[in-house]
Amino acid sequence: MPDALPSAPAGLLAALGAALGPRGLLTEPADLAPYLTDWRGLYRGAALCVLRPATTEELAAAVRLCAEAGVAMVPQGGNTSMVGGATPDESGRQVVISLARMNRIRDLDPVDMTMTAEAGVVLKAAQDAAAAAGCLFPLSLGAEGTATIGGVLSTNAGGNTTVRYGNARELMLGLEAVLPDGQVWNGLRRLRKDNTGYALRHLLVGAEGTLGIITAAVLRLFPRPRETEVAFCAVRDEDAALALFRRFRDRDETALRAFEYMSGTGVDLAVRHIEGVAHPLATRADHYALVDLASSRPDAGLRRLMEDVLEAALEAGEVLDAAIGGSEAQRAALWRIREEHPEAQKREGASVKNDVSVPVSRVPELIRRCSAALAALVPGSRPVPFGHLGDGNIHMNLMQPEGMDPAAFLARSDDIMDAVNAVVRELGGSFSAEHGIGRLKTDMMEAWRGGAELDLMRRIKAAVDPRGLMNPGKVLP
Amino acid sequence: MPDALPSAPAGLLAALGAALGPRGLLTEPADLAPYLTDWRGLYRGAALCVLRPATTEELAAAVRLCAEAGVAMVPQGGNTSMVGGATPDESGRQVVISLARMNRIRDLDPVDMTMTAEAGVVLKAAQDAAAAAGCLFPLSLGAEGTATIGGVLSTNAGGNTTVRYGNARELMLGLEAVLPDGQVWNGLRRLRKDNTGYALRHLLVGAEGTLGIITAAVLRLFPRPRETEVAFCAVRDEDAALALFRRFRDRDETALRAFEYMSGTGVDLAVRHIEGVAHPLATRADHYALVDLASSRPDAGLRRLMEDVLEAALEAGEVLDAAIGGSEAQRAALWRIREEHPEAQKREGASVKNDVSVPVSRVPELIRRCSAALAALVPGSRPVPFGHLGDGNIHMNLMQPEGMDPAAFLARSDDIMDAVNAVVRELGGSFSAEHGIGRLKTDMMEAWRGGAELDLMRRIKAAVDPRGLMNPGKVLP
Repeated sequence: MPDALPSAPAGLLAALGAALGPRGLLTEPADLAPYLTDWRGLYRGAALCVLRPATTEELAAAVRLCAEAGVAMVPQGGNTSMVGGATPDESGRQVVISLARMNRIRDLDPVDMTMTAEAGVVLKAAQDAAAAAGCLFPLSLGAEGTATIGGVLSTNAGGNTTVRYGNARELMLGLEAVLPDGQVWNGLRRLRKDNTGYALRHLLVGAEGTLGIITAAVLRLFPRPRETEVAFCAVRDEDAALALFRRFRDRDETALRAFEYMSGTGVDLAVRHIEGVAHPLATRADHYALVDLASSRPDAGLRRLMEDVLEAALEAGEVLDAAIGGSEAQRAALWRIREEHPEAQKREGASVKNDVSVPVSRVPELIRRCSAALAALVPGSRPVPFGHLGDGNIHMNLMQPEGMDPAAFLARSDDIMDAVNAVVRELGGSFSAEHGIGRLKTDMMEAWRGGAELDLMRRIKAAVDPRGLMNPGKVLP
Repeated sequence: MPDALPSAPAGLLAALGAALGPRGLLTEPADLAPYLTDWRGLYRGAALCVLRPATTEELAAAVRLCAEAGVAMVPQGGNTSMVGGATPDESGRQVVISLARMNRIRDLDPVDMTMTAEAGVVLKAAQDAAAAAGCLFPLSLGAEGTATIGGVLSTNAGGNTTVRYGNARELMLGLEAVLPDGQVWNGLRRLRKDNTGYALRHLLVGAEGTLGIITAAVLRLFPRPRETEVAFCAVRDEDAALALFRRFRDRDETALRAFEYMSGTGVDLAVRHIEGVAHPLATRADHYALVDLASSRPDAGLRRLMEDVLEAALEAGEVLDAAIGGSEAQRAALWRIREEHPEAQKREGASVKNDVSVPVSRVPELIRRCSAALAALVPGSRPVPFGHLGDGNIHMNLMQPEGMDPAAFLARSDDIMDAVNAVVRELGGSFSAEHGIGRLKTDMMEAWRGGAELDLMRRIKAAVDPRGLMNPGKVLP
């Protein structure tokens, strides 16, 4: 349960109620509860109230009122942050601002190939709206049924198709935002080229709500794929997985929509725990790759491309066996093995999650060295590396030893993350590839981004949000 | 000739000479001259001296010395700015910092598909280095034989292949920069995903040297094309040009490397003035499109794709006639018609240049309305719209009337730009698509980006460069 409400500034609540109406202001503890805990259950906060504005103007009015009262604001989208980025602190003096009611798609233009969506539009709804217009909005990730456009932009979310389409940042042409003082910035330009001063939109994307609140965005659309192919491949080792990626990239980098790595352990867990997930190959392997090809060309010949490359890789001994999905249902079944990795790990027991990246060339070394370091750190533990090999982004997760007390294992979380990060650092990588900093990783910023970089970030924060009212305690230590 | 040197702070010059060595400090008026005038001849400045550091450390030392002395710095790459972005003012109290000697390619990795290049590397040299490694660095523009990596990043340059590969910004993964106080920021990470705080690299890209000096960058490489096709098409009108673009984009957006629009007037001028440029079609038209397809697939079937789409467009009456280049030489000859547009206009007489963008869907209206407005504004003048239709970026240039005094025509420059911009504004466009703001367009910032946006830019400038020593008078009014 959240802390009891502190003695609330009654005048502020009354003014917020007047500005937002009864649906826009929640103050009952039971109503607040869903907004106070992060998705992973790492944090449990409290709040003065939850605001649910319906329009940019309502939001701007609310921000002005909070700013005048000196009250800190925590923007929240689908609340699927993996790093506690949208959770209020424990003080009960912060206000949560949910964008959920700002969920209109304001415009979709299939000639410009753009969609203007409000922050609260759920990612899946944006994908569906694009599809209904014969287009593709390619951002795709596990939480797409809940995560919102404002959230994926504020965290610069990645996901499965980044290797082809880029992160959320690359899919955004313009923004509308409410700044920390309540000013509305309308930068909803649907232009492919616009060099008129500093790229404020890129500053707000990935700032996790610490520089203002994204309220709407112009998103890029693409022609819908007319051919797709998916293959599930047993590969010899980590190097072979990288070699296979290079074969596909070199042959046609534009056809390669996703290239995912999975370990034997991870696939075993998915098959064991998830109903309907079956192993598509006759024999088990220690390493797998999932290859997804797509093209808008109706005559792209992707099946031939897939078969040609796999055949060459089989001959070279990189691929041991492979299954190509022959139908939409089969392709979905192959993808499910990968998509159910998080759920399967959850059912197996406690696990420590990591979200790291390295240069693509260093992925095999990352997996090998981290796996060895983690097995040595916690005897009996089971490394479950999986993720976006094509982006150098591997979730270097670790399952608890069988039979170990989950709490005792989770007590080692910091050691485990430190062990992974020590390798990542030596390989020139990042300690947060696609999930961001949130609350979870602020204390790592000094060691990784200290000096000129963090100094510059702090100066920018102070310039844009001088009173520090926007999502304090996130991103910056 | 530049102004005479003002009484120079002798101590500063001595210290700079000690830090940079004799090759790194120019003080003789004859040596300074090439650095003091912009490429278009719009501005003629003066300078205390020109610095030519050879390393990041030398540059950082020089910036510290200038900062301590309170002397303003003007970074300069290839000095090909179209908007006076790298030209010092007339005071003679500014220091020009040329990055020309920092021209090493520090690293090129064909597995990571990255190149780490210093700011002074000429764009063409970067392209060549990528090609020598069997890769492609796709940024391509008219000044590529002179423009530098630091310059194209600082201005977020566009060019011919933006429709496929994006602007300079999209081709950059990491940066190294010297900040206004002389601190070195090393953000040369070669990561596809890295969500660790504010995207400082995106703030520096496009800032035109007003927030610091980019010294090196990690650039993205791509597989080299193995098939290319180029077609020169006479099209019915502006709408038909857009319809043709949509046909190609819808069929395979990844194959479309460039889609350029040209007017009959522009093609006439190229054929008339440029030796070796011939009209490839039997009859003249008022509107043309240049289509460039490329794929890394050796079996992409681009010729069939090109013929299929052109045939459908011919049947629909959108395309009147078309020539497909049958060889590398023929393809180059077709491209040359477009590439020689600026030179042909120069030889014809005085012209006023514009660099505007609109949503792609509004390009036909942009061309029609601007052409009509300009013809009415200066009777006898000849609109020569051309450029990157696929990006919505049209150079809405205007040739002087035949026989008119060039100076009298150029005296109308502001009226002409205003007339174009009035249309652009109504169509939701931008007054600077790919050339930036520089000195030329600072006084337009208030009208176009005033309010919350310009306020935020000014706050960021003040936070990063509190004494205003980095390229003052550029970008911000």
